[in-house]
Amino acid sequence: MNIQPVDRSLQAQLQQKIDHLNKPKGSLGRLEELALQIGLIQHTLTPSLNHPCHLLLGGDHGIEREGVSVSPREVTWQQMINFTHGGGGVNMFCRQHGFKLRIVDVGVDYDLSGIDGIIDCKIARGTRNFLHEAAMNQEEYEHAMQVGVRLVDECVAEGCQVISVGEMGIANTSPSSIWMSLFGNIPLDECIGAGAGLDSPGISHKRQVLAEAVEHYRQTRSGDTAKVDAEDVIRYFGGFEMVAAVGAMLRGAERGLVVLVDGFIMTACAIAAIRLCPEAQDYMVFTHCGDESGHRRMLDIVGARPLLNLGLRLGEGTGALCAFPILDSAVRMINEMNNFDTAKITKYF
Amino acid sequence: MNIQPVDRSLQAQLQQKIDHLNKPKGSLGRLEELALQIGLIQHTLTPSLNHPCHLLLGGDHGIEREGVSVSPREVTWQQMINFTHGGGGVNMFCRQHGFKLRIVDVGVDYDLSGIDGIIDCKIARGTRNFLHEAAMNQEEYEHAMQVGVRLVDECVAEGCQVISVGEMGIANTSPSSIWMSLFGNIPLDECIGAGAGLDSPGISHKRQVLAEAVEHYRQTRSGDTAKVDAEDVIRYFGGFEMVAAVGAMLRGAERGLVVLVDGFIMTACAIAAIRLCPEAQDYMVFTHCGDESGHRRMLDIVGARPLLNLGLRLGEGTGALCAFPILDSAVRMINEMNNFDTAKITKYF
Repeated sequence: MNIQPVDRSLQAQLQQKIDHLNKPKGSLGRLEELALQIGLIQHTLTPSLNHPCHLLLGGDHGIEREGVSVSPREVTWQQMINFTHGGGGVNMFCRQHGFKLRIVDVGVDYDLSGIDGIIDCKIARGTRNFLHEAAMNQEEYEHAMQVGVRLVDECVAEGCQVISVGEMGIANTSPSSIWMSLFGNIPLDECIGAGAGLDSPGISHKRQVLAEAVEHYRQTRSGDTAKVDAEDVIRYFGGFEMVAAVGAMLRGAERGLVVLVDGFIMTACAIAAIRLCPEAQDYMVFTHCGDESGHRRMLDIVGARPLLNLGLRLGEGTGALCAFPILDSAVRMINEMNNFDTAKITKYF
Repeated sequence: MNIQPVDRSLQAQLQQKIDHLNKPKGSLGRLEELALQIGLIQHTLTPSLNHPCHLLLGGDHGIEREGVSVSPREVTWQQMINFTHGGGGVNMFCRQHGFKLRIVDVGVDYDLSGIDGIIDCKIARGTRNFLHEAAMNQEEYEHAMQVGVRLVDECVAEGCQVISVGEMGIANTSPSSIWMSLFGNIPLDECIGAGAGLDSPGISHKRQVLAEAVEHYRQTRSGDTAKVDAEDVIRYFGGFEMVAAVGAMLRGAERGLVVLVDGFIMTACAIAAIRLCPEAQDYMVFTHCGDESGHRRMLDIVGARPLLNLGLRLGEGTGALCAFPILDSAVRMINEMNNFDTAKITKYF
C-alpha cells in the first residue's frame, strides 16, 4: 500500500487557529492535540468526522485447541449471531455514537452464511494451530488483508471519515501476546495475561503453550532470530480477523481516514500495521488502555498515549467507541469555539 | 439539609443484573461501577439520565486584587456574556451532550442584569479580600447556598436526573487551594499551582499571598487551629459561585440526582460539600483529573478516582461534560445489553 505521512504544511496554521480560540493556550489538553491530528489527517482547518463506521471482525484460532482460553470457541459464532440481534456491547455503543456497524465473518468456525446482518468474507473455518504450523498460508494472508481493504473502501464510498475496528475471536489474546513480544522485543511472559478471565494455572499453561509455539517458530526460521520479518510473524501467528484488521488500518491510513485503535488485540494489530508501514501511525488514535496485562507496555512500544482508561476488557472495539465523543469534542472545539477576537475577551496572558 | 446515604437494599440485585449481562464478569470495568452507583442513587434496576442540566456559576473574588491570577477580573464578566452567545467551551459540550445550560451570575463584578441568557442571582459584586477579612458574611454565605439549592430545585422540576456544575471566576483557584489545604490537611504550598497560566514568579507570589491569608485567618480563630470548622472555612475563603456550587451539590444529593464533579475548583467544592455532609459523596461522580498541580492529591482526600484524564484546565465544567457519554454508556449497558439467557451464549467461565 502507498501510505503517505500526513501533510504537515497546514500544521502552523492549525496550531495558530487552536491557540487563538477563546481559552488559555493548551487548556483543552488532549482535545487540542486531537484537533491538530485530525486537521493534519484531513488537511483542513475545519475537520469533520462524518459517517463513522465500526468494523467488527470475527475469526477462530487453531491455538484455541490447546486450552489457552477460558471460553470455548463456539462463543465466537454465538456472539456473532448475538451481535446481529443488537444486544452486544458493540451494538449499544454503535447506537449511542452513531456508528454504522459492519459485522464480518472473516474466519469463524461455523456456517454463518445466509445469516442476516453478517457479511460473509470467510477465508476458512478458523486458522491452523500455530503450535505446530503457520496459522495461515500466504494466499490466506493476502486474502485476509484484502478483506480489510475492501471493507474500508466500502466505508469510504459511503462518505466515512473515521473507522474503528473491533474483533470477536476466542483465544485471540494469544497471537496478540506473541506479536507484542516479537514486535516489541519484550520477554513473552511479560506479554501474557488472563485474557477473558483465566486463573493462575490457566495463565501458566498459556505461557507454556505460547513459549513452545514461539520456540518452534524460531527453529523453523533459519538464521538471525533477533531480526523479525513482520509479514512472516503476522502470517504465522495471526488470526484471519486480526490480519483483516491490519489491512483495514493500513487502508484506512492510505485513504486518509481517522483510525480508532481499541484495546489489547487491536493495539497488537496496530503495531503490526506500523511495522509493515510506519507512516500509518499518523492516522491512528489510540483510544483505551484496558486491563489485559501488558497493554500499557504494548502502547509504549509505539509511544502511544491512550485517551481512556476505563478498565474495559470486553473487546469488540468497545473502548474505541466509548472514546469517540472525545474526538467529536475536539472537532467541535476547532469548528465551533469562538476565538478571542469574535468573543471580545481580554486575551489571557 | 437532609441527605440520606444511598439505599443499598437493591445492591445485590443490581450487581447480579450487571454480572449476568452478556460479557465476562467485570469486563466493562468502570461502566459497571457507574451502572451500580447510578442504580443505587435512583434505587432502580433500570436507571436513566434524563434532562441533564449544567449550572455555570459566575463570581468574582476579592483576592484577585492581590495579583494571584494571570487574568484580570474583567475576564469573568466578558466570558459570562460570551457564554450567552454560545461560543465558549461549555456551550459546545452542552450542545454535544444535550445538557440544558443555566448561566448564573452569583457574584460577578459587573452589571449583567437584563442580559438575555444570564440568570440574575447576584449577591454582591465580588467577595471581599480574604487576605484581610472574611470573603463573605454569614448572611451572604447562606444566600449563596440557597442560590445553589434553588437552581437544583428548578432542574428537578423539569425532570432533571443529572447535574453538572461549572464555574467562571477569575482567581478562584486561590480559595480552592486553601480549601484543599485545610480540608485535606496538606501543606499549602503543595496545593498551589499555576492556575490559568502563572509563571514561576507568579506562583511564588500566589503562595506568599495565600500563606499570609491563612496565617491571618488562623490568628483570628482562637483555640485549636488543627481543628477546622468546615462552614467557617468555606465562608471565609469561598467565592459566591463556589458556595452556590456547594449548595447545588448538596441539594442534588438530597434530591437523589447524579452529581457530576468537574476539575480542580469543583473538586474543592465537592470536598467542602462532603465535609459538611459526608453522605453527599454517594451521589457524586468525579469526572476528570486536570492539570492543575495537586488535583490528583485533592481527589485522594476523598478517595475519588476520576473517569477522565485529558489534561483539561479550562474550567466551566468542561471535564464533567466530556465525561457524560461514559455515564450514558453505563446506563445503556444495564438497560440494553442482553443477558446470557436471552443471547443464548455459552456462559463464559
